[in-house]
Amino acid sequence: MTNTTLTTTATRAATDATDIADAAAPATIAVYAAPAPKAPLERGTVPRRPLGANDILIDIKFAGICHSDIHQVGEDWGQGIFPMVPGHEIAGVVAEVGPGVTRWSVGDRVGVGCFVDSCRECDNCRAGLQQYCTSEGGPVFTYNAVGRDGTPTYGGYAKQLVIDADYALRIPDALPLDVAAPLLCAGITLYSPLTHWGAGPGKRVAIVGLGGLGHLGVKIARAKGAEVTVLSQSLRKREDGLKLGAHDYRATSDPATFTELAGRFDLIVNTVSADLDLSGYLGLLRLDGTLVQVGAPEKPVTVNAHALLTGRRSLSGSMIGGLPETQEMLDFCAEHGIGAEIELIPADRINEAYARVLASDVRYRFVIDTATI
Amino acid sequence: MTNTTLTTTATRAATDATDIADAAAPATIAVYAAPAPKAPLERGTVPRRPLGANDILIDIKFAGICHSDIHQVGEDWGQGIFPMVPGHEIAGVVAEVGPGVTRWSVGDRVGVGCFVDSCRECDNCRAGLQQYCTSEGGPVFTYNAVGRDGTPTYGGYAKQLVIDADYALRIPDALPLDVAAPLLCAGITLYSPLTHWGAGPGKRVAIVGLGGLGHLGVKIARAKGAEVTVLSQSLRKREDGLKLGAHDYRATSDPATFTELAGRFDLIVNTVSADLDLSGYLGLLRLDGTLVQVGAPEKPVTVNAHALLTGRRSLSGSMIGGLPETQEMLDFCAEHGIGAEIELIPADRINEAYARVLASDVRYRFVIDTATI
Repeated sequence: MTNTTLTTTATRAATDATDIADAAAPATIAVYAAPAPKAPLERGTVPRRPLGANDILIDIKFAGICHSDIHQVGEDWGQGIFPMVPGHEIAGVVAEVGPGVTRWSVGDRVGVGCFVDSCRECDNCRAGLQQYCTSEGGPVFTYNAVGRDGTPTYGGYAKQLVIDADYALRIPDALPLDVAAPLLCAGITLYSPLTHWGAGPGKRVAIVGLGGLGHLGVKIARAKGAEVTVLSQSLRKREDGLKLGAHDYRATSDPATFTELAGRFDLIVNTVSADLDLSGYLGLLRLDGTLVQVGAPEKPVTVNAHALLTGRRSLSGSMIGGLPETQEMLDFCAEHGIGAEIELIPADRINEAYARVLASDVRYRFVIDTATI
Repeated sequence: MTNTTLTTTATRAATDATDIADAAAPATIAVYAAPAPKAPLERGTVPRRPLGANDILIDIKFAGICHSDIHQVGEDWGQGIFPMVPGHEIAGVVAEVGPGVTRWSVGDRVGVGCFVDSCRECDNCRAGLQQYCTSEGGPVFTYNAVGRDGTPTYGGYAKQLVIDADYALRIPDALPLDVAAPLLCAGITLYSPLTHWGAGPGKRVAIVGLGGLGHLGVKIARAKGAEVTVLSQSLRKREDGLKLGAHDYRATSDPATFTELAGRFDLIVNTVSADLDLSGYLGLLRLDGTLVQVGAPEKPVTVNAHALLTGRRSLSGSMIGGLPETQEMLDFCAEHGIGAEIELIPADRINEAYARVLASDVRYRFVIDTATI
């Protein structure tokens, strides 16, 4: 692994009166980054944002690998900003606080998810739904974005991160940091729709796909008291699924699944981004049931309107969660002993991990030990 | 117009102990019917079902022409039962009651909508949502269906109709029967989603399409207190739309409509069955907004999942309404002076009316004066 220094296209913001960064501190952060679209990730450095009055410096301990990291490095969703430091499932410890910060102290255990800022003024931001910020460009994503100061954002495959103190979450002491990291994206991505659409006692919930997202969906839906069924392509992971808390586990490759379970579920959360026959899944919903997409397939999705009409069914979408709900999710997971099932890897295995994610060969989330960067 | 007698493929149910029909009464009903798929409708007769203990005989006064009548005669949705007597927007007067009927008296003003029976035992039937009856085959539709007695059902383009007394609705005295007829399908098709998704004060509602369905949607949404916008292909009917109660009227052929109204609506009801770019319409919804399909396009609908995810939006479907809600709708319309805008025609102009419906040349519903059959 080469140890190149990655340069950035960003203009470094001039140090201003609110910059209280120790002049002796390094102005860079050690990272693993993709130097160019689709390129393997390599060790390097990126500029460290000056610590503003309301900022905190986080010593990152663990960072999860999300499938969307691979999409963004690959520019599957549009042009990327390079060098790109992926990672929006971040767990660490506060190392320094700006003078305006009252909420955090050095040593606090914190998490950072998919966004690090938003307009704070639109209706959604005011309602604590920062993920749906309606300002131009929406929320500032944790990496592959441009912050409100005009500099690029760099993510969690790094030793450190400077962010606005308001956008960090508290990781309860009961949650180990390594298994907590994936909760910041995968966890909240499932917790939010399960909560919004009322998964709980008396409700039948299906989780489509038992991967990084799905396995947390099973744990959370079960902890919320719902009856949980996994709908997976095959029965290969059935034993795992039942151990994780599912009451039932069915293969979607078996046509009988779609007849036997017709009209059964109140809520289906689809974690699979591949092209599925959604009309078939809609048929599994009872009256007023909802099929929620939490991933965005590259191609538009196609459904038979008849499947919607005949049971007042809905096809909906949900995207991560806001700050208050993400905190609620972390507290809920701590209370119920829910963490991700992880495979901890050193940083020099990130590229190998990417290949294995693409091959669906992970149970259930890779987490990078950032001490190895 | 020839005056042929149409034969039916149905086995006439043997008159049994519950048949109290006057032996002197004709055993047939004068109708307008399609003798074969896609054939012009012509005058004829069909067998009259014996009046059972819980049945009523209705003298039909008016029957609306619904676009779905044309689809069914044309077998666009599957094989039809011929001869076919279309019509599920029926207004009339009770002419005779079975001995078990306590709810109706001769002379009562009644309406019949899209279904005339259902299993009465499934969860949805018990909840008064007979339109979503989950028994095999679902509810018994008013025509082009087979009743629970094994005989075909014949619809409203007829002088008379015998139906189970439980499946008739009361038309309040304040509602003239001719403008009430279209409420039984078009009216409830809009009333139900507007009610279910909370159209009312403080809510912004868009109605896509100003036709037979849409014009009633505008009237009902306005009466419910919502802010109402019509989204129509052109501004051709703008003046009508505003007169009917819309606050705003926009052309969907103008791309500016989709930028200027982005994120504006809580609810959009799409009455257009033609293939639309639904992703564009989803972008007009605010957080948690819903786009409801009330018509089933022949082709599957395609949406960009991104449009669902980025605002927790839903694409939903709604199909007519149950008996209690249909009665509620009729009472609401009577209270608010809402009837359909109609063009009253004699029966010998039905085929011409079909052609005009297909050309979107009707403001806004054809209603047949069944005295002319």
